Amino acid sequence: MTTQHSDSHDHIENNPQFKGLSVNKGIPAPPPVSVEATQRFLNIRRSQLSVDDYVTGILAGDITILSRAVTLVESSRTEHQVIARQVIEKCLPHAGRSIRLGITGVPGAGKSTFIESLGMHIIRQGGKLAVLAIDPSSERSKGSILGDKTRMELLSAEKNAYIRPSPSAGSLGGVARKTRETIVLCEAAGFDHIIIETVGVGQSETAVHSMVDFFLLIMLAGAGDELQGIKRGIMEMADAIAINKADGSNVVKAQQAQAQYTSALHLFPPSRSGWTPLVKTCSALNHQGIDEMWNMVLDYVSLTKGNHFFKSNRNSQSSYWMYETIDEQLKHHFFHHPKIKELLHTYQHRVKHNETSSFEAARELLDLYFQNIDK
Amino acid sequence: MTTQHSDSHDHIENNPQFKGLSVNKGIPAPPPVSVEATQRFLNIRRSQLSVDDYVTGILAGDITILSRAVTLVESSRTEHQVIARQVIEKCLPHAGRSIRLGITGVPGAGKSTFIESLGMHIIRQGGKLAVLAIDPSSERSKGSILGDKTRMELLSAEKNAYIRPSPSAGSLGGVARKTRETIVLCEAAGFDHIIIETVGVGQSETAVHSMVDFFLLIMLAGAGDELQGIKRGIMEMADAIAINKADGSNVVKAQQAQAQYTSALHLFPPSRSGWTPLVKTCSALNHQGIDEMWNMVLDYVSLTKGNHFFKSNRNSQSSYWMYETIDEQLKHHFFHHPKIKELLHTYQHRVKHNETSSFEAARELLDLYFQNIDK
Repeated sequence: MTTQHSDSHDHIENNPQFKGLSVNKGIPAPPPVSVEATQRFLNIRRSQLSVDDYVTGILAGDITILSRAVTLVESSRTEHQVIARQVIEKCLPHAGRSIRLGITGVPGAGKSTFIESLGMHIIRQGGKLAVLAIDPSSERSKGSILGDKTRMELLSAEKNAYIRPSPSAGSLGGVARKTRETIVLCEAAGFDHIIIETVGVGQSETAVHSMVDFFLLIMLAGAGDELQGIKRGIMEMADAIAINKADGSNVVKAQQAQAQYTSALHLFPPSRSGWTPLVKTCSALNHQGIDEMWNMVLDYVSLTKGNHFFKSNRNSQSSYWMYETIDEQLKHHFFHHPKIKELLHTYQHRVKHNETSSFEAARELLDLYFQNIDK
Repeated sequence: MTTQHSDSHDHIENNPQFKGLSVNKGIPAPPPVSVEATQRFLNIRRSQLSVDDYVTGILAGDITILSRAVTLVESSRTEHQVIARQVIEKCLPHAGRSIRLGITGVPGAGKSTFIESLGMHIIRQGGKLAVLAIDPSSERSKGSILGDKTRMELLSAEKNAYIRPSPSAGSLGGVARKTRETIVLCEAAGFDHIIIETVGVGQSETAVHSMVDFFLLIMLAGAGDELQGIKRGIMEMADAIAINKADGSNVVKAQQAQAQYTSALHLFPPSRSGWTPLVKTCSALNHQGIDEMWNMVLDYVSLTKGNHFFKSNRNSQSSYWMYETIDEQLKHHFFHHPKIKELLHTYQHRVKHNETSSFEAARELLDLYFQNIDK
């Protein structure tokens, strides 16, 4: 729900309730913003750009047009989706030439500070960086990731950085699609570094892991309590673990944690990438260890481009998202079918109480679905 | 494809090509097996048991009838499936009262010896044990699990043990369904301990994990090479790790591995069960550490029955399999649709070469499917 600011101003000025607010008439105050500038802004806001306008703007690196295209991607309105799809298809051939980095960790691990520090390093090296986020559970972790751009003050002031908060709530599949499509647009606009941030407590890490080249888990020293929030299975997805806040009295603890995690990771089976996951300490706040972290990512890229995993992994990811989308849509269609909505609860109850087997229940529901699929 | 033995015999005897094989007529040789016995066997084989015959036999603990019911469950013939489904539904209220233990590990870890040793221990304590297997990739790991009952010689001679090899190849979903239905039949027949064996190299561990109460990973001392075959993510599913073959000169290495894995498991986030995964050493060959292993399982059962995880986990598993079956069948229907079979390859190619996005490809395929679903 977008708030109509102009409407609420009218509301205040014309409403007799607010009469006490008006002072005696005199010389009309100049508008706080130049009329001309406002009009120009409104013209841009209101003008319907064509698909080609979008594509041309994006390929020219126009951030305003990029932002508007991302807004179309995120919109649920059909007419926006129609344009967005065409823009994406036309940007696709210009996308893909970037390093995509996934970053996860529990709230409090210092992800924003880390991204700001790493991001500034990347930009100083001449890179262009887009920072996106996946946070489907936005209700629960409100504001915890990228909710507030000001958490990355330096980065948001950089013209070579583009920070885009997570699209507002929706199914994980929907949010994942929007993020992947936003990656395409950002890459076409010349961003050669993409960071996708996610909180490590939900279902979203697998999604992020399936759209990045390198997956980094940010942890704190002192294994144990800090891990309470981390989802099982996430450690085995990580290409590296960064023990953050390794500063002051924390340095020794961080080094101990580094040793522990290193030996733990050695027990894991090797990844298909040929890369051995590393554990490093850093202090994002003090910008210590950040350049080593980035060199590690570059080592990984160089290794996996050499052994062709980089490309084959991206191909697998594209396939994955095609199949994943089909899967999600098939399920969506099934579970939104009126017959199924009517009877699912009954079947669930019967399965729970051993009155029917899981398979028999599934079979009967599927029969109902396919018999009534046109209705 | 079942081979018709009688047909091929006829084929040989009546075919002029094999004329040289017939000798001069004389006194007919006596049949190698008593005619009467053969006839009795054939009568049993051929007699159509009713659904009630099956159910009565199973509830009475008749192993022959149990075996025949399992064969129905495994059969792909519709008339067998119709009976099997009714038998399962009638057995369901009598199922569920067992401890279900999943056992996995790479080939060579000693799973069979372990199961034999643990199984004999369970039986000596008065338990009745059914050992089942999931091995959908039967081509690749032929004979590696339960392919040969004689690998569990002692156990297969026990009247309170029932060993059933993996149903022959099929989709993982199909094999999983058959195994879960076999569990129901075995439990209804009075087996109060179920072991499901799987190799730790495929897709099947998640399936097994989703149908057991306790999931045990069998490993060997000397972390590293042995792990090459273990799938990533499997360690975090384990409720315990058994370091097997801790005998002779291996004892010290096994204890070192125990310490390493214990510290690694501590880094994992806690499981919903409230149970902290343990690492124990054992020598299945020498029957050392097996009773401790079993006591650990009993501790787990006692803890999780106390905190109600045991029951809630089983409920989740039943739901899981209902949803999983629906999901699998929806996908099966989609990917076997003639339109999809015709076009999927083209879309995959386009996605791989960045000619279309994963989501656009999925969208177009889904449109085609739903437009043509009746054809």
